[in-house]
Amino acid sequence: MAISDKTFKKLKDIAGKSNFSRAKEDLVCYAYDATAQTYLPDAVLFPQNALEISAILKLANKDSFFVIPRGAGSGMTGGSLAVKGGIILAMTRFNRILKIDKENLIASVEPGVVTGRFHKAVEKENLFYPPDPSSSEFCTLGGNLAECAGGPRAVKYGVTRDYVLGIEAVLPTGEIINTGVSTTKGVVGYDLTRLFIGSEGTLGVITRMTLRLLPLPEAVSTMTAVFNNMETAAKAVSAIIRYGIIPRTIEYMDNASIRCVEEYLNMGLPVNSEALLLIDVDGKEKEVEIAINQIKELCISQGAANVEKARTKEDAAKLWKARKAISPALFRYGRDKINEDIVVPRNKIPDMVKKIDELRKKTGLAMVSFGHAGDGNIHFNIMLDKKNKEELKKAEAAVEALFGYTLELGGTISGEHGVGITKSPYIQKEIGAVELGLMKKIKKIFDPNGVLNPGKIFP
Amino acid sequence: MAISDKTFKKLKDIAGKSNFSRAKEDLVCYAYDATAQTYLPDAVLFPQNALEISAILKLANKDSFFVIPRGAGSGMTGGSLAVKGGIILAMTRFNRILKIDKENLIASVEPGVVTGRFHKAVEKENLFYPPDPSSSEFCTLGGNLAECAGGPRAVKYGVTRDYVLGIEAVLPTGEIINTGVSTTKGVVGYDLTRLFIGSEGTLGVITRMTLRLLPLPEAVSTMTAVFNNMETAAKAVSAIIRYGIIPRTIEYMDNASIRCVEEYLNMGLPVNSEALLLIDVDGKEKEVEIAINQIKELCISQGAANVEKARTKEDAAKLWKARKAISPALFRYGRDKINEDIVVPRNKIPDMVKKIDELRKKTGLAMVSFGHAGDGNIHFNIMLDKKNKEELKKAEAAVEALFGYTLELGGTISGEHGVGITKSPYIQKEIGAVELGLMKKIKKIFDPNGVLNPGKIFP
Repeated sequence: MAISDKTFKKLKDIAGKSNFSRAKEDLVCYAYDATAQTYLPDAVLFPQNALEISAILKLANKDSFFVIPRGAGSGMTGGSLAVKGGIILAMTRFNRILKIDKENLIASVEPGVVTGRFHKAVEKENLFYPPDPSSSEFCTLGGNLAECAGGPRAVKYGVTRDYVLGIEAVLPTGEIINTGVSTTKGVVGYDLTRLFIGSEGTLGVITRMTLRLLPLPEAVSTMTAVFNNMETAAKAVSAIIRYGIIPRTIEYMDNASIRCVEEYLNMGLPVNSEALLLIDVDGKEKEVEIAINQIKELCISQGAANVEKARTKEDAAKLWKARKAISPALFRYGRDKINEDIVVPRNKIPDMVKKIDELRKKTGLAMVSFGHAGDGNIHFNIMLDKKNKEELKKAEAAVEALFGYTLELGGTISGEHGVGITKSPYIQKEIGAVELGLMKKIKKIFDPNGVLNPGKIFP
Repeated sequence: MAISDKTFKKLKDIAGKSNFSRAKEDLVCYAYDATAQTYLPDAVLFPQNALEISAILKLANKDSFFVIPRGAGSGMTGGSLAVKGGIILAMTRFNRILKIDKENLIASVEPGVVTGRFHKAVEKENLFYPPDPSSSEFCTLGGNLAECAGGPRAVKYGVTRDYVLGIEAVLPTGEIINTGVSTTKGVVGYDLTRLFIGSEGTLGVITRMTLRLLPLPEAVSTMTAVFNNMETAAKAVSAIIRYGIIPRTIEYMDNASIRCVEEYLNMGLPVNSEALLLIDVDGKEKEVEIAINQIKELCISQGAANVEKARTKEDAAKLWKARKAISPALFRYGRDKINEDIVVPRNKIPDMVKKIDELRKKTGLAMVSFGHAGDGNIHFNIMLDKKNKEELKKAEAAVEALFGYTLELGGTISGEHGVGITKSPYIQKEIGAVELGLMKKIKKIFDPNGVLNPGKIFP
């Protein structure tokens, strides 16, 4: 939908001249996200409050243009891209932590607050906000809510959904609504709050969020366990959890990930092992010590080849550096990356890893898998040159096969990245026609003219 | 809507003769719930599978009659009452625990399973299903889902919402849908699962549920702390949680509750104290011992008059008996009870207790408050003779005042009982017109002809 100069003028009036831009060099900065796809918007606006957003959305319905809310643009599935053109609402100015209520363990924040900044702010008060996507140093809380972000700590603490108590949002039609409560319990009317969570910016623009906090755990301890095959590693994970210890994180790296990081960092990783578990335990000092020792024993009794506790904070940081280096290290294997985040029941991880080995052999493409063994959330990466049509075809066939197998195992094609545009072609593999029909009708209720974040989720 | 004999005949054909009744003595059994209100349905059916329910609902749309799903009829707000007549779908036959998956810590169950039976079944496998409404000995998992039941353990473990991963349901129009996943993570499409949770049987009939389980805590320890005023008790609660211990339960009883139970049970409760806290801690044996001692110290340092640990399981059971005796004991004070379940931010409990004292003095009616101090969920009870018009008027005015004050304090008018018919007249105090409008439109999508559970939630 082409936007007239008259409409641009009105938008400039709403947001103020300095909060509006059509300059190419600005538009480029709001055209990308972590999918590495780019779509140039028609303009970018930096609204300052919910009323301005309300006015913008009312105008969008009247003058027919698209509006795309955007946090940090760190999304993995295209949720913040202007795929059909339109106005980017850059939520940068919504960057205030409004309140940290130490008595009731809740916080009120604006959606543009960077997640890592919020972590630091609450930790200073001896409080804890568990959701911790890998992008936490630059992603925003609003984006986390829109995608229902997870991260490694989810195995113990759950995902963003479990920490959002209520929101203020501007509907696509311009009304400002408030949902939810400021308390952990609350059952008055339908759960609009959780309908917004994971709706990928298609139902409204979040302008404020009430978040639940926890007391900051006194201590965190890190250990690794190395295994000769993935089955044994998976059994160890099950044994730990069944024993009644829920570690804060249980990450795994497959052999290909271990090799890749070792080539990149040269830190002495066990390149011949088939699986490495990276485990964090948190809680009271004494509790953590006991738990780590129990986990070490459990891993050994399940057949771990080697088990080691990080002696110092620096050691622990080094291990986490290895885990976080996987993504950048991968670019040694190809210029482009396809990154999926499937989930399977925890005890099916070995089956999935085997399947990935098969696909690697079959396609000849570099593939690694790593992720959150504790909750079955696997990050499956294929490296390729997308301009090489043959490679691209092979990679796409591998993704298709992988999604099929994921669903066969009782899993889901996205654990924390959402559907956006990259998984939209596959959504019908997982969601039935009637269910998808209900979702589309819900979208229509909220956004009768389809002005907000079009082209996402629904094929 | 009057139901014709022809329609009754068709219903009998769908469910089978022995699963259908219009006999007055049967109807009476399905006419009540815990509100003590009665509405005689036109018939009661005992469907055996989702296909039968689908056929019944399709017929309801065609022949225009109401269908009301019902678990155990233990609801506190009228959710399962046939307030406009119609057919009761008694979900009694959906009583199978289909699967307990020890590896992945999930279970698949039918909605008619009694919650307490499910607790026992998973505990036998050393697993744990935390949601534990006080009615757990007779309420059903389906009803728990419909109302988003909570209970005392919510302070540590959350509510029903936090344990339902996915459902199978029959839409009011008869289609059978599946929502959610079998894994803790999953973000594909809108969150229909949580839209169902707490929707009070108005969006569909649940026929299967996938539930998340935890490892069973090794040990539970119980203690009491007695305080000379509610402020001190509330400060102790905050101190415990801020210290980083989240007890499994933190229940409180106000002075009126303590007196009432003592008159009833004669067990030596401290009738002169203003507040009694009943605290359970769970976890590993050693952990629990350390935690209980820390809590004792914290309570004393915050000004507790007396602190005592239950020495034996019998002692602990006795204390819980006192807590659970409040409801029956109350009937000494009046033949009818108004029972509300408001929630306020944890540190506002003393303000609310003060308000209740004021209302007690003003009305001269017996009022007690008790509940879940850990999450601010207060059960406020008024005893009266509802046939006494003056008493009823006073009581209703007190409820109105209480709800107003609850919202003023940033709370909600229902933490775990839902809205149903009893809170429906008040819903607009909490939910705005636009938000309520969205909810009504969602209802209309799911149930265009309004056949399922009419007259609930919406005024």
